[in-house]
Amino acid sequence: MRIALDAMGGDHAPEPIVAGAVQAVAADPELRVVLVGDQARVEPLVPVDAAGRDRIEFFHCSQAVGMEESPVVALRKKPDNSISRCWQLLAQQKVVGIVSAGNTGAMVAGGLFLKRFLKNVSRPGIAAVMPTIKGPSVMIDVGANVSPKAEQLFQYGVMGSIFARHILKRDRPTIGLMNVGSEEAKGTDLAKETHALFEASPLKDRFVGNVEGRDIQRGVADVVVCDGFVGNVVLKTCEGVFEFLMKVLQKELLAGLQAERDKAAQVLQGLASRYEYSSYGGAPLLGIDGVCIICHGSSGDLAIKNALAVAAEYVRAGLNELIVKELEAAPVRGERGALAP
Amino acid sequence: MRIALDAMGGDHAPEPIVAGAVQAVAADPELRVVLVGDQARVEPLVPVDAAGRDRIEFFHCSQAVGMEESPVVALRKKPDNSISRCWQLLAQQKVVGIVSAGNTGAMVAGGLFLKRFLKNVSRPGIAAVMPTIKGPSVMIDVGANVSPKAEQLFQYGVMGSIFARHILKRDRPTIGLMNVGSEEAKGTDLAKETHALFEASPLKDRFVGNVEGRDIQRGVADVVVCDGFVGNVVLKTCEGVFEFLMKVLQKELLAGLQAERDKAAQVLQGLASRYEYSSYGGAPLLGIDGVCIICHGSSGDLAIKNALAVAAEYVRAGLNELIVKELEAAPVRGERGALAP
Repeated sequence: MRIALDAMGGDHAPEPIVAGAVQAVAADPELRVVLVGDQARVEPLVPVDAAGRDRIEFFHCSQAVGMEESPVVALRKKPDNSISRCWQLLAQQKVVGIVSAGNTGAMVAGGLFLKRFLKNVSRPGIAAVMPTIKGPSVMIDVGANVSPKAEQLFQYGVMGSIFARHILKRDRPTIGLMNVGSEEAKGTDLAKETHALFEASPLKDRFVGNVEGRDIQRGVADVVVCDGFVGNVVLKTCEGVFEFLMKVLQKELLAGLQAERDKAAQVLQGLASRYEYSSYGGAPLLGIDGVCIICHGSSGDLAIKNALAVAAEYVRAGLNELIVKELEAAPVRGERGALAP
Repeated sequence: MRIALDAMGGDHAPEPIVAGAVQAVAADPELRVVLVGDQARVEPLVPVDAAGRDRIEFFHCSQAVGMEESPVVALRKKPDNSISRCWQLLAQQKVVGIVSAGNTGAMVAGGLFLKRFLKNVSRPGIAAVMPTIKGPSVMIDVGANVSPKAEQLFQYGVMGSIFARHILKRDRPTIGLMNVGSEEAKGTDLAKETHALFEASPLKDRFVGNVEGRDIQRGVADVVVCDGFVGNVVLKTCEGVFEFLMKVLQKELLAGLQAERDKAAQVLQGLASRYEYSSYGGAPLLGIDGVCIICHGSSGDLAIKNALAVAAEYVRAGLNELIVKELEAAPVRGERGALAP
């Protein structure tokens, strides 16, 4: 199984990215990784005696999209950038998946540009794994589609629940619709329309209705469906609150302790790494014909290793085949003009 | 200064609500509170020898809106409910402000129904005070208007910054627009249009552009403008993350400590009460001709006392006059067809 890794994407690329690839191939004997980037910089980072060294390949390209660059402009002005090269390898079926910790907007734009979507998917969405009191859940979409249509939100529910079942191992994942209150009549027209689509679909037994912001961490639903604007803001708000509370605790809690100060500091440190909203292994862009995993810009070697492992798991579980099949069985109105049964 | 307090609104009403009123009149010799609710239940809760007892009045009504009731249905089916009575007292100018910890949707619906908006305000918005690493900031709107127009978001920026200046004591409050990225071209059409309105307005020197979810707690802007859908979800997400982390810390941190366990528990307890997202003194519905403060349903006596104090401060600072004046000076296109200079 060959997966392309954007070696140039990420706040500290290429060092931790390449290190993550080395660890991933050592851990999974079926995995081959194509390091896409400036070969002169990337190749020396792979130890010649690394386990699985023969399963690491190089695809040279001369450009990279900066983390802060405008995605559309960058993709146009830099035709030989590592993100576009990853997507092209996927389109040419030279790899089954791609992973990048680079510019998220450019990753999504690259995918939308190629338009290699799964059958019955009208727009891909990014799924993010969220920690909850009941274990991980998935929120979809967190930024690929800021102005979705109701049927696209419905498709996110279908795709997210397949991800929750096969990657998060939730038996019968429940689906909630992010809204401003639990009543059916709450929220925008989009929310009401999406609510009706779920209620009229084969998924209705697992649809728990509207959920609110505070329900995410309570684990009220295994899959939380929202538009990409709301999902992106929520994801980053969670990061912000977490960061804020950790700072306050470091200052106020640790300052008040003496004998057990180091112990408490260790617990906070452990929490920070465990509950980092990016540590699970990246966020998949679901709905793509192939596997596409988007990692946080700050990803270290472990996060990259995890993302490659999730990509491999995704391929082995045949998630895309399941998505196509389930969308076939749960048609929604939209391009095809059909209404849910 | 006479303020109406919905004695029947809140998870534990009327006891803590009345207790808050008693404390508020004792603390502010200019304050008169009208307790609106079932007089037979409310009056006995006021100690006959309470300081300022002569500044507590009663307005009897026979009905109350439940916390989970559908706002519109409840207001229609229960004409003698305490929320509608509060609004009517405001409309008749018998009070200068109203405070309720009851059904938020019903409070907003009551205000929209009377339509006593300030001059130049096309829709009121709820402002919530958010803790940040740099002190409190204000997020507006958090749920009054889930599908706003750009000029309404602009007005929220104007109103929020007056609130930040006079209530949060920020000298020259900065304004940020909630979005999915910092670039100007990011986000929905609504976000882009609102961005342009701020850039073309007299507020442009204090407009810091787009802010992201993680910027709220970092205190990147003193005023964060967002639509009521996003703001409501963000506010409740903050509550959820906070609640989640407190639970995890209680379990994992406290379990690992021995000698200083009680000390750490105390710090967590203190944090919980200090950073409760509702403790500041309620969320004002800005843009109303009068003062309207909406408190969290779980408000205790202290939260109600604070909310009454904020309402009084709001009146004394002449916030509404400032809002009318500033909106006059910063016209936006909209009903009046004018474009910002």
